[in-house]
Amino acid sequence: MSPVVGVIGGGQLARMMIPPAVALGLELRVLAENAGSSAGLAATAVGDYRDLDTVLRFAEGVDVITFDHEHVPQSVLRELVARGVAVHPGPDALQYAQDKLRMRARLSELGLPVPEWATVSTVAELAAFIAENGGRAVVKTPRGGYDGKGVRVVSDAAEVADWFVAGEPLLAEELVEFRRELAQLVARRASGELAVWPVVESIQQNGVCAEVIAPAPSSAGRIADMAADIATTVAERLGVTGVLAVELFETTDDRILVNELAMRPHNTGHWSIDGSTTSQFEQHLRAVLDLPLGSTGCHDRWSVMVNVLGGSSTVPSPDRYRHALADQPDVKFHDYGKQPQPGRKLGHVTAGGDELDTIVFRARAAAAFLQD
Amino acid sequence: MSPVVGVIGGGQLARMMIPPAVALGLELRVLAENAGSSAGLAATAVGDYRDLDTVLRFAEGVDVITFDHEHVPQSVLRELVARGVAVHPGPDALQYAQDKLRMRARLSELGLPVPEWATVSTVAELAAFIAENGGRAVVKTPRGGYDGKGVRVVSDAAEVADWFVAGEPLLAEELVEFRRELAQLVARRASGELAVWPVVESIQQNGVCAEVIAPAPSSAGRIADMAADIATTVAERLGVTGVLAVELFETTDDRILVNELAMRPHNTGHWSIDGSTTSQFEQHLRAVLDLPLGSTGCHDRWSVMVNVLGGSSTVPSPDRYRHALADQPDVKFHDYGKQPQPGRKLGHVTAGGDELDTIVFRARAAAAFLQD
Repeated sequence: MSPVVGVIGGGQLARMMIPPAVALGLELRVLAENAGSSAGLAATAVGDYRDLDTVLRFAEGVDVITFDHEHVPQSVLRELVARGVAVHPGPDALQYAQDKLRMRARLSELGLPVPEWATVSTVAELAAFIAENGGRAVVKTPRGGYDGKGVRVVSDAAEVADWFVAGEPLLAEELVEFRRELAQLVARRASGELAVWPVVESIQQNGVCAEVIAPAPSSAGRIADMAADIATTVAERLGVTGVLAVELFETTDDRILVNELAMRPHNTGHWSIDGSTTSQFEQHLRAVLDLPLGSTGCHDRWSVMVNVLGGSSTVPSPDRYRHALADQPDVKFHDYGKQPQPGRKLGHVTAGGDELDTIVFRARAAAAFLQD
Repeated sequence: MSPVVGVIGGGQLARMMIPPAVALGLELRVLAENAGSSAGLAATAVGDYRDLDTVLRFAEGVDVITFDHEHVPQSVLRELVARGVAVHPGPDALQYAQDKLRMRARLSELGLPVPEWATVSTVAELAAFIAENGGRAVVKTPRGGYDGKGVRVVSDAAEVADWFVAGEPLLAEELVEFRRELAQLVARRASGELAVWPVVESIQQNGVCAEVIAPAPSSAGRIADMAADIATTVAERLGVTGVLAVELFETTDDRILVNELAMRPHNTGHWSIDGSTTSQFEQHLRAVLDLPLGSTGCHDRWSVMVNVLGGSSTVPSPDRYRHALADQPDVKFHDYGKQPQPGRKLGHVTAGGDELDTIVFRARAAAAFLQD
């Protein structure tokens, strides 16, 4: 009798859907890439999400299919929809999270603020773009990139000559001079209801999200309004259902530009598990089931999330864990159940309170204890 | 590599241990009485917790055994301990939660405030107790009672004549004139660390907890201190590990008396999932693994929890659920995944905020929507 949500992908995002599914009384089923995935407890199937038969079998008896990642091919998604399976977000929206060239084109069409960009199919075209944009450019493969992969900053088109070999066009973007990176999360359900969390500041290290401060300091008013407007416009005009994360640049000349889109819970929203009345994971489940959305109010004036990345050691350390818990009784710990590897996201910690400086210290201290 | 916690009993308490186990990166295994239990997702075994072989098999490979209820026989518990299995709370402590006569005797010995009481083995002894205590008494079977079962208020000893047939002594207690009922939860780990939540007010209906207000209104100072002192004394002197709930009477003449003990997460602590930095379920897991305890600070000035009980209908109603979510976006919903039956605890809701009156209204409204 309880609604069944099928999640394709067995990473930490699927794992963090388990607690709200338990609370809301939903059944969660996960199609994981391999046994022993992060979402172990709810992983009811193991298989290749690119294989139509595997996905169709997984979709039997679920009320909705949703995702831990954006990599399910359009052909598979469209076949699901054709067979009457509810898919949220749907393929029409997801194409813009799957293909950065389509995303840039659509956002430009909608008049949303984006960096200067161009489709470049040859070294010569890229060289021209670089020349027009101050001698530098960010080049991105339109598909499959994440956490800094598939992105290069170049001053010479020859630096991505290897990427042109495949014959696919690339996305060239101006190298934006930004003061900081922001992220705006919203949730939208099929019937149109929207819920907006406060805009957050996201601090990246080596192309990977390292810390998030919620709300973004000094963002009240104009910046918060612009970020919320952009994200709700994207959600509505692209027909996104579920959680949408819009990564933004705050430029040194005070503009807000859209960097990337993700149509799923996002690293920049992990703080909401402990910091918001409704976490992004609960909201995503509500939204994809077209259930009424929950309040996005905050428990604390400030929430700070710090990622825990695998260090040089690949041996997990129970002692460090014990010390972290003992040292930081106010910090919330989130383990992803993964084997440590250098640079791998193994978990995160969140601290909340009135004094930003104290909160940042606590979260960093807890993460430092856990990190080798 | 992650610690494994084995929980005996597959009810809602085991179910609500799943979210913090996911966050802390623990493996949770549940021995459920039957398939389709509340703790379904984590129910890795089905069997009779009174059967030693079943429990020994379940205990293989777990780091600690703990409980969703107090009904595992002492003989089974002691055999586990004899074989080197960590059991928290241990049998020495649990006997006082399993047997109300032992509990009363031990608390009296420790000088803790309890109602007038006596062991009565015959109708005549009970009649004498009633005569000495104003013509009325509360009679309890020492074992197996819960939610008002195994408890009768009598003015004539003959009213429990059927209970004497078994030949076991009963517990007779004065009928305490109380202003309200309170509950004090604490957690204690084997190495001695204690964590104390604020004392709460518990409102009972038909012997079942209906609502909880945290903290108990007008309890700051003397009442809060007395309740905390009593509960920490019980935890320490009885050697309780994990969460201990002490149900208390606040008498009309301003005394605090111990009513009942439970050595596990407790209905009066459910508010802590949404209202405290560390929920009773997370704290219980930390405590039984002897991990450092988390902060018991509160997110809100007030938290109010209302139980959702099965009504006249046994058909679950998705419409009511949808309306409840839509009407109360600030309320947190907790479903226990149970088939509805009249009077059965099917879930609970929690609201938090600054204005007690608003919060009580919200929580009651949400529960009313869900109840048939």
